[in-house]
Amino acid sequence: MMREPVELSYAKCLELLSAGGLGRAAVSTPDGPHIVPVNYAVFDESVVFRTSPWSVLGSQPPGALMAFEIDVADHERQIGWSVVARGRAGVVDDPAELASIRAFWDPRPWAAGMRPVYVRLRWRELTGRRIGAGWNHDNELPVRRAL
Amino acid sequence: MMREPVELSYAKCLELLSAGGLGRAAVSTPDGPHIVPVNYAVFDESVVFRTSPWSVLGSQPPGALMAFEIDVADHERQIGWSVVARGRAGVVDDPAELASIRAFWDPRPWAAGMRPVYVRLRWRELTGRRIGAGWNHDNELPVRRAL
Repeated sequence: MMREPVELSYAKCLELLSAGGLGRAAVSTPDGPHIVPVNYAVFDESVVFRTSPWSVLGSQPPGALMAFEIDVADHERQIGWSVVARGRAGVVDDPAELASIRAFWDPRPWAAGMRPVYVRLRWRELTGRRIGAGWNHDNELPVRRAL
Repeated sequence: MMREPVELSYAKCLELLSAGGLGRAAVSTPDGPHIVPVNYAVFDESVVFRTSPWSVLGSQPPGALMAFEIDVADHERQIGWSVVARGRAGVVDDPAELASIRAFWDPRPWAAGMRPVYVRLRWRELTGRRIGAGWNHDNELPVRRAL
């Protein structure tokens, strides 16, 4: 059975995105687009994540355009949703802003290595789509997958 | 415990990517990068997926640079891996090539709507990273998540 994808409301996109966890950031470079998986949080209508200043995400110019995506898919039931945030991003260098973000979200990184830089993506566009039926509040969130 | 990320070999990246399923394609546009989740297959050292000719992925110029990402994460155990393919992509318009791809992979799309266009990304770069210990052949594949 084929179903029309449903556009999600801004409020629903924000709710789904706010769960945090693993997402993917994309940037355009002269060498083509890059996609990098990152752990993130939503802070004051923006996406924040940590990286190193030498990484492709950490070395973008201030105000670089960025896209950020999360999704959940159930292949057996052929249902899924995705949310994409797009806008300008940059390394947080204002001390007060940095302190606010750190007070809210100071994750232990999964991987070793210095990730002293916080990147903040202030979206100007937040959109999402859902495919398939049978969603409820228990199964829609990006719960932590058990391997 | 912090662990150094491990770079995956080309062979391992190819094995993980070849499982197919859901991935995310990124393109650069004048309006900034886009990320779009798509179902895909690996065909002859390339990533193929279907879309509509009017979509952001289907309307890229021939040979546009593209990135494609898959990942698996276990938040509780703080382990995960990701594979990224990068290279030039384009709509498949050669009839023989199209026939070969269709014979190999002709998915029923999850969503309604015409997706008559096959896009093929021939990677020139295939890289991957793994974080955390305890991987084995049973838990590393991007198995279909049960909601």
